[in-house]
Amino acid sequence: MAIRTVVWGENIHDRENETVRSVYPEGMHAAIAVSLNADPSISASTATLEQPEHGLSAARLKETDVLTWWGHKAHGAVSDEVVQRVAERVWEGMGLIVLHSAHYSKIFRKLMGTPCSLKWREAGEKERVWVLKPNHPIAQGLGESFIVERTEMYGEPFSIPEPLETVFISWYDGGEVFRSGVTYQRGGGRIFYFSPGHEVYPIYHDANVQTVLRNAVKWAHSPAPAWSGIHNAANVPVDKAPEPISQKGPRLHAPGEAGYR
Amino acid sequence: MAIRTVVWGENIHDRENETVRSVYPEGMHAAIAVSLNADPSISASTATLEQPEHGLSAARLKETDVLTWWGHKAHGAVSDEVVQRVAERVWEGMGLIVLHSAHYSKIFRKLMGTPCSLKWREAGEKERVWVLKPNHPIAQGLGESFIVERTEMYGEPFSIPEPLETVFISWYDGGEVFRSGVTYQRGGGRIFYFSPGHEVYPIYHDANVQTVLRNAVKWAHSPAPAWSGIHNAANVPVDKAPEPISQKGPRLHAPGEAGYR
Amino acid sequence: MAIRTVVWGENIHDRENETVRSVYPEGMHAAIAVSLNADPSISASTATLEQPEHGLSAARLKETDVLTWWGHKAHGAVSDEVVQRVAERVWEGMGLIVLHSAHYSKIFRKLMGTPCSLKWREAGEKERVWVLKPNHPIAQGLGESFIVERTEMYGEPFSIPEPLETVFISWYDGGEVFRSGVTYQRGGGRIFYFSPGHEVYPIYHDANVQTVLRNAVKWAHSPAPAWSGIHNAANVPVDKAPEPISQKGPRLHAPGEAGYR
Amino acid sequence: MAIRTVVWGENIHDRENETVRSVYPEGMHAAIAVSLNADPSISASTATLEQPEHGLSAARLKETDVLTWWGHKAHGAVSDEVVQRVAERVWEGMGLIVLHSAHYSKIFRKLMGTPCSLKWREAGEKERVWVLKPNHPIAQGLGESFIVERTEMYGEPFSIPEPLETVFISWYDGGEVFRSGVTYQRGGGRIFYFSPGHEVYPIYHDANVQTVLRNAVKWAHSPAPAWSGIHNAANVPVDKAPEPISQKGPRLHAPGEAGYR
Repeated sequence: MAIRTVVWGENIHDRENETVRSVYPEGMHAAIAVSLNADPSISASTATLEQPEHGLSAARLKETDVLTWWGHKAHGAVSDEVVQRVAERVWEGMGLIVLHSAHYSKIFRKLMGTPCSLKWREAGEKERVWVLKPNHPIAQGLGESFIVERTEMYGEPFSIPEPLETVFISWYDGGEVFRSGVTYQRGGGRIFYFSPGHEVYPIYHDANVQTVLRNAVKWAHSPAPAWSGIHNAANVPVDKAPEPISQKGPRLHAPGEAGYR
Repeated sequence: MAIRTVVWGENIHDRENETVRSVYPEGMHAAIAVSLNADPSISASTATLEQPEHGLSAARLKETDVLTWWGHKAHGAVSDEVVQRVAERVWEGMGLIVLHSAHYSKIFRKLMGTPCSLKWREAGEKERVWVLKPNHPIAQGLGESFIVERTEMYGEPFSIPEPLETVFISWYDGGEVFRSGVTYQRGGGRIFYFSPGHEVYPIYHDANVQTVLRNAVKWAHSPAPAWSGIHNAANVPVDKAPEPISQKGPRLHAPGEAGYR
Repeated sequence: MAIRTVVWGENIHDRENETVRSVYPEGMHAAIAVSLNADPSISASTATLEQPEHGLSAARLKETDVLTWWGHKAHGAVSDEVVQRVAERVWEGMGLIVLHSAHYSKIFRKLMGTPCSLKWREAGEKERVWVLKPNHPIAQGLGESFIVERTEMYGEPFSIPEPLETVFISWYDGGEVFRSGVTYQRGGGRIFYFSPGHEVYPIYHDANVQTVLRNAVKWAHSPAPAWSGIHNAANVPVDKAPEPISQKGPRLHAPGEAGYR
Repeated sequence: MAIRTVVWGENIHDRENETVRSVYPEGMHAAIAVSLNADPSISASTATLEQPEHGLSAARLKETDVLTWWGHKAHGAVSDEVVQRVAERVWEGMGLIVLHSAHYSKIFRKLMGTPCSLKWREAGEKERVWVLKPNHPIAQGLGESFIVERTEMYGEPFSIPEPLETVFISWYDGGEVFRSGVTYQRGGGRIFYFSPGHEVYPIYHDANVQTVLRNAVKWAHSPAPAWSGIHNAANVPVDKAPEPISQKGPRLHAPGEAGYR
């Protein structure tokens, strides 16, 4: 079965800003979904902020293998309830691809546990993305580096936890560097952050960038059953201990009582 | 100057439960503070849930090098504002020691980005804490293992991110294992989670446990200046780029405009 | 195409020790290969110490996707040249599964950069292997734990580098714990160490252990092209720099000269 | 007591190459030692390749807290016995600072378990070293970045294991990037690799570089007792098991027999 992928877009600049509209007439989310669907092993649909529940109902998320997230202007408008719901699905095993300015999205900061801040400059300068792990699944089909001709600079320090893997580091005309592709695991879910993607440039039309996104979806997909128990602190009664033991000393909880949370 | 340490305690069972009261007549937080103050390089005071701002005003946190956190029954009663304030200080460089049932505290889950759930059993069984890194600063003064004679079992899977270091793993009479001492870094702050510490047993009176806590405070203390810039995404104007560049192509933000957040 | 897997066995106790011979009449390597071949996506053959080049010629390794390694008595008899050859293939992308007493093999110690020592006891005691990551590819098809009824105890501290992932931790009757399943990446190659497998017990006939081995082979297999450049420090001549620069200042090497090694 | 530091230098170009001699009349090792000794908490002496045992006798290493290593042309001339000796001291807890072209030294490759290859270009170009962790002990006293005016380019991919921490990333005039400051732990020993330091430029006379080296020595120093047991696989006899057990089933080793290695 194809990897059920939802491409989430904030869809504000896409409609309100003339430059962005001219680059992505159907919205960035639509352009990303088209590029993902070019791979027959991926089945991508879209969801946007203005939809009910931002297009991310519990029922839909349950049927989602990988979610990609692009937001910029309206991080604060995303409901905490939906953010929690997305986080829970990541913990259960859903993959998450976090794009560009979504470094500041509620969902990424929640999963990282850090501010996820960085330096930035919007000068249309050149970015060279270097591949650190040539045989990483996310880097397949790329050369040793690729160029994003006009980009927004994102510079270090990027206040993220130490990544599981640093796949890409970017060089900028203006003198900065940035860890532009990093991976994490949170519970059962794989997470990939990828920084190229400023909305006023045609970055999601770039062949290398599209290759990265398709690779990332396939990498983030977990075929294992959902880790459904991850949300609970399960009591193991004394008579169900793996090794036979007997109750000793005082206790706080009556037998069968739930733990505090 | 001594390490300015605040021992935070929920202080509910300590007052309301007769068993806990008999073990810790002044409260667990007081007992922990006394054991920390036995080391002249540490200066520990206490704070509790029922105090204004839970005893953790911005002014006090600013003067705090390391915070220890014990909570169990009332995680939900801790205000989100104080949790955010504590997180911000950790990101700036304050150390954080998370104790026992605080695996489920708001602050630990916020910094980890995972559910932090586990298995548990309150049977007064024996726990043997194994030292995996004999020359780690937190393990100094311990043998190859030490025993907590009566403990609450905490069992794997413990849904935390992969630790920076696994310092201790515990063995239980009843057949389970647990990563009982793990370290993390979040922004500028070092974090140590340590699982022994169930309130109905005299665990914080144990000499080995006290050694761990004193070591952990010293390990978590960062003498560096606070990483105050960690909260901001700083714009680097085009004319302040490290290498000379000129503006190219369209842009979203007017010069000098703040970024979105 | 099936995953081309070579099961390497020392094949000494298998022939010389009556107990081992009775448990594994064809040798442990043969038993492991049979259990791997039960999965149609794996194509496993065997190689042993006494063969020319220990059965690991350059030509054969080049056609190998995943290598499993079991050794105990004769680590020192493995030629350094073959060890180097295996390491080079791991760096290029070949997966490596390191079994039981191969914690002390030349190849594992070479790839880890640490002594890889541990505690041990041969008492036929019970081992309970706990799954820390229920949806990890290597843990698929297992319960929350499984039992190895009679085992050799391997105890912490296990002097390995901090793992990329800790998948299993074992509990022993005698009171010890051990990180019994850990993953690493070295260059392009994935490495999995799995501790159960003492030769006098029928551990490789156990269904759960066989499930782990099949999962591990599939997890360790990299479909990407070999990272062939990993062995070289490539000079980038000044006129081939990604950005135009000119030679400045003195230099050590004449143009076109190879670097030192 | 001051941190007993040995600055090891290959001392070949320092004597034979006129340019290097003019930059470092006493040798690079001497210049580094002088800069370290500017900090009263460090007591640095030197050792060089041409000395007996390369100046690294067992007795001297035993009294060494931190070793710094610079080599380039003669990695192969370093005796394997001395390399093993140095590795053993690192595992016991000695800190190791690996400088520039020592990425290809026997000791670094032995401790990493990877080829440690990279791209290079000797063009006297500019390197900008970015600080990723402003409050890391190794980054104290630096600004957000610092410049090495003329440098040898070292470019990614740098085939090292995923670092424990990435402290610095460098930007080059010619378009490349490099993880120029990374940390590891191997056994009890902390390791820091720092790439600036090409011998034909006065890099070790640079104030920022000297600050990094002094910081690194202090960071790498472990005040804990040596982890002397790390070299041995200790047998735990059945009657010495932490929990009482009895011998079951067959065994390979006679009681009291040493394990294989």
